[in-house]
Amino acid sequence: MFYQTIDILGTVAFALSGVLVAMEKRLDLFGVLIIAFVTAIGGGTLRDLLIGNTPVVWMRDLTYVTTIFITVVFGILFVNQLKYLRKSLFLFDTIGIGLYTMVGVEKGVQAGLSPVMCVALGTMTASFGGVTRDILCNEIPVIFRKEIYATACIVGGFSYFLFVMVPVPEGYAYMAAIILVITLRILAVKFDIRLPNIYKKET
Amino acid sequence: MFYQTIDILGTVAFALSGVLVAMEKRLDLFGVLIIAFVTAIGGGTLRDLLIGNTPVVWMRDLTYVTTIFITVVFGILFVNQLKYLRKSLFLFDTIGIGLYTMVGVEKGVQAGLSPVMCVALGTMTASFGGVTRDILCNEIPVIFRKEIYATACIVGGFSYFLFVMVPVPEGYAYMAAIILVITLRILAVKFDIRLPNIYKKET
Amino acid sequence: MFYQTIDILGTVAFALSGVLVAMEKRLDLFGVLIIAFVTAIGGGTLRDLLIGNTPVVWMRDLTYVTTIFITVVFGILFVNQLKYLRKSLFLFDTIGIGLYTMVGVEKGVQAGLSPVMCVALGTMTASFGGVTRDILCNEIPVIFRKEIYATACIVGGFSYFLFVMVPVPEGYAYMAAIILVITLRILAVKFDIRLPNIYKKET
Repeated sequence: MFYQTIDILGTVAFALSGVLVAMEKRLDLFGVLIIAFVTAIGGGTLRDLLIGNTPVVWMRDLTYVTTIFITVVFGILFVNQLKYLRKSLFLFDTIGIGLYTMVGVEKGVQAGLSPVMCVALGTMTASFGGVTRDILCNEIPVIFRKEIYATACIVGGFSYFLFVMVPVPEGYAYMAAIILVITLRILAVKFDIRLPNIYKKET
Repeated sequence: MFYQTIDILGTVAFALSGVLVAMEKRLDLFGVLIIAFVTAIGGGTLRDLLIGNTPVVWMRDLTYVTTIFITVVFGILFVNQLKYLRKSLFLFDTIGIGLYTMVGVEKGVQAGLSPVMCVALGTMTASFGGVTRDILCNEIPVIFRKEIYATACIVGGFSYFLFVMVPVPEGYAYMAAIILVITLRILAVKFDIRLPNIYKKET
Repeated sequence: MFYQTIDILGTVAFALSGVLVAMEKRLDLFGVLIIAFVTAIGGGTLRDLLIGNTPVVWMRDLTYVTTIFITVVFGILFVNQLKYLRKSLFLFDTIGIGLYTMVGVEKGVQAGLSPVMCVALGTMTASFGGVTRDILCNEIPVIFRKEIYATACIVGGFSYFLFVMVPVPEGYAYMAAIILVITLRILAVKFDIRLPNIYKKET
């Protein structure tokens, strides 16, 4: 129930971020719907394809599509208010990333993959939607340019395996990893932490 | 036989649209071939991947590749004449979209998906080729910016399920849905019908 | 052992080309890592997805990820030296393409596909990584614009089936095809051979 609620909030947040980007590009109604949809389900789709879990999950469970559709209608109606909601959006988005990371890790564990691959799956689940959104809108994906974004997923994902080795009970490790991803991302944005600059200064 | 003919015409039309876009971008011979290929089989590939129907259909049936190859050779030889064929191309393209929509819907029904997902599959089958073509050529996909395109697929796809519920015999419902997609798209372009503007006027 | 060595060299070369492109775009550390990763495993991933060979190969064998990771660290540390290594890079890249082409062809044969489809699979295995790299970096893929690149894969791939028909023993045919791809690509670049211009001169 709690899990389900956060899952829906995550889907809502990703869909809303898609609506905002698509409207900035002045796409038409269908374009906005598609971008919202792709942002919300892109990560899970890539994950399911890579591990051969087909039909992909959003095709078997109508909850995702229904949630996204309602979110887009809401987003278009209240787009002006949404600008003031940026901070809430960031929070939902971050919760979504935390959860999606661990959903991906879990699917990897179920598929018998090694921890490194589980973390890779989790990171892709959390981030591929935003990457696809940016490619469709003809931008270099923001994840490659700004903020510590995927790094939070990777660190959080590995922390799960460390917690389980301690051993922390699986459920707690799962929640702790989600909270770690969320915390890292919030701290990174709040204190403007960036990955080390790998380019030499031009003189 | 009739079905096969339209299917090939659809593939031809999509391949030709790819040739035209690729030549406008002045890609080399191989680039033109690839863009034509991707435009014609992109939708079916995504559909087969999402429902786990692998190897994807064009890998198991040489007809698609052969048809596309012949079309590209023809397209390059007669590119100047093709400019006068724009209207025929639009017609073939529209027929292709109508058919591809229902092929996708049918595959969804066979995979036991809900009607909403079948329609989503059909729409993707009809439109993903063009989207990929535009991404490869570094454009915002035209489907997100102009014309009622995917909307015709969605309305047509749902009409199939309504027809079957009446009940209209399945074969007739199938044909009626194809014709509806085609008619909607022709009317939309002819009368310049667009999706409602969701942006406020700037003053 | 020999095969394994070349395979790793190919992965290294593709990863390095990704590092160079990503650093030219001034992506951050994570962006460079992802672009290198995608360039090195993109082709194999598309191949495995299309034939339904999931989980995809790099998820089941850690060698790929480990190799790419080490290569990226090396690439970032020695990026200035790498500029002088362009020619070695081109050589490794070309060896990688030759090998990846035949790995793809082999997988197609195992999946019972027709020779045309095996060659298509091989070509995609060799080239899709670079295409994805360029799309992510917001460029028209270089493969569509410059050099005879995929053509070498196609000719080499078909040569394998011709060699086997002669009949040349399979292992020798395999090696001969790899060498043919490599030779064609080197000759094409050395003598600036291009595909025939399909555009009329503008007067």
